[in-house]
Amino acid sequence: MRCISCKEEYGARDAGTCKECYEEASETEEELKREIEDLKAKVAFLRFWSPVDHGHRGSNSPAPFFPDVVLVASDDGSPGLPPVPVPAHKAVLASRSPVFKAMLENEMEESRSGTIKISDVSYDALRAFINYLYTAEVWLDEQMACDLLVLAEKYNVKHLKAYCEKFLVSKLNWDNSLMSYAFAHQHNAKLVLDAALCLITDNMDKLTKREEYMELVEKDPRLVVEIYEAYLGKQVNTAAAHKDNSMKS
Amino acid sequence: MRCISCKEEYGARDAGTCKECYEEASETEEELKREIEDLKAKVAFLRFWSPVDHGHRGSNSPAPFFPDVVLVASDDGSPGLPPVPVPAHKAVLASRSPVFKAMLENEMEESRSGTIKISDVSYDALRAFINYLYTAEVWLDEQMACDLLVLAEKYNVKHLKAYCEKFLVSKLNWDNSLMSYAFAHQHNAKLVLDAALCLITDNMDKLTKREEYMELVEKDPRLVVEIYEAYLGKQVNTAAAHKDNSMKS
Repeated sequence: MRCISCKEEYGARDAGTCKECYEEASETEEELKREIEDLKAKVAFLRFWSPVDHGHRGSNSPAPFFPDVVLVASDDGSPGLPPVPVPAHKAVLASRSPVFKAMLENEMEESRSGTIKISDVSYDALRAFINYLYTAEVWLDEQMACDLLVLAEKYNVKHLKAYCEKFLVSKLNWDNSLMSYAFAHQHNAKLVLDAALCLITDNMDKLTKREEYMELVEKDPRLVVEIYEAYLGKQVNTAAAHKDNSMKS
Repeated sequence: MRCISCKEEYGARDAGTCKECYEEASETEEELKREIEDLKAKVAFLRFWSPVDHGHRGSNSPAPFFPDVVLVASDDGSPGLPPVPVPAHKAVLASRSPVFKAMLENEMEESRSGTIKISDVSYDALRAFINYLYTAEVWLDEQMACDLLVLAEKYNVKHLKAYCEKFLVSKLNWDNSLMSYAFAHQHNAKLVLDAALCLITDNMDKLTKREEYMELVEKDPRLVVEIYEAYLGKQVNTAAAHKDNSMKS
């Protein structure tokens, strides 16, 4: 027989689907692609211009439209220079973050003064954060993903937090696993935590020799205990599965 | 052979794809579905609360967050009552519509007064229009689709215009084809225009007996001329295709 899709000859052993199912699947694929096009157009429509899209630090970025608030990175790391404010709209901040919403609705200091100070963050991370609130887009490296995850957690921006978590999981390896584990613990990043814990407990034989391990025992022994508990849990599960299998056979 | 997908037996004549292509197609489908989930989450994130979502005319709708402009349907059809203003944000209006953008940027009357008057529109259509600018969502019937198409054309909101056009094309039939054709002509709705023209020229034998036809000849004979031109073009094309085919055979 000749495959309708790749046009190659094949024997009965390599047969896949009947013609009807093939045609149905092709139709489904077309439908899904149309849905993707529609959704992409919707995203493009709903996307805002970012107030920080076109400007670099110190350059003359075009003013955004009718901003009614500015954000300032209070720990901006450039000594001697006043921090560069990032202009924004209360309506956008409140729409994307329940924390900003509460802050601005309740006529707190920030709402009255029109200035929101963000502590423990660099100007670049603040800029990327605000950009994301307007556009749902961001360029990540590992440092930026960590910085933004912290901001996303603090201001309860779930969509951004999930995005950073996925990125960090994709970058997870044995070398950064302990650091990632501790970071995920501190910032309530369950996806990263589970992935790191899985990687660590798969390599327990190598664990105790690592410098980071000894540092963690020193600094936060409860986290090390949790690693051992997860390891134990895994062993118990594996044993139960073995028993289950040998009873079945 | 047994189909991997529907599990039914089939013969060589009904064979579709080989196993490898089936597996590839299944993977592609999964990937497309994941992409759709991601895009849906992005839409949900970028979607605004609508300033008109929860309120009905005359009811106490909750105030939207920090509105800096109101829109008024200047031809709101309720005699004796002042028109109900629809609150909104300049930033949102300017982001969705280049016409609002120019209006608000250039400090025209509307920007200074904080009131934008929209003529030739009902309160309900204006409300649905503003709602769409915030959420990219709307409930359509034929009347609303026409009203919103007019607004979308006037304020150059391409995404909404395309949405209304698709809806009107889906509702096209012989009875409304001439009206739709004239409407599409007037409001530059190419998708509706082409679909209506196609339907009309497929039924030329019935055309001249219709009351709407006679009215259109009276009111706007140029539009009728265009129908005949399209019909003629179709005939020439069909004849050329016939000739082409008979030369090939």
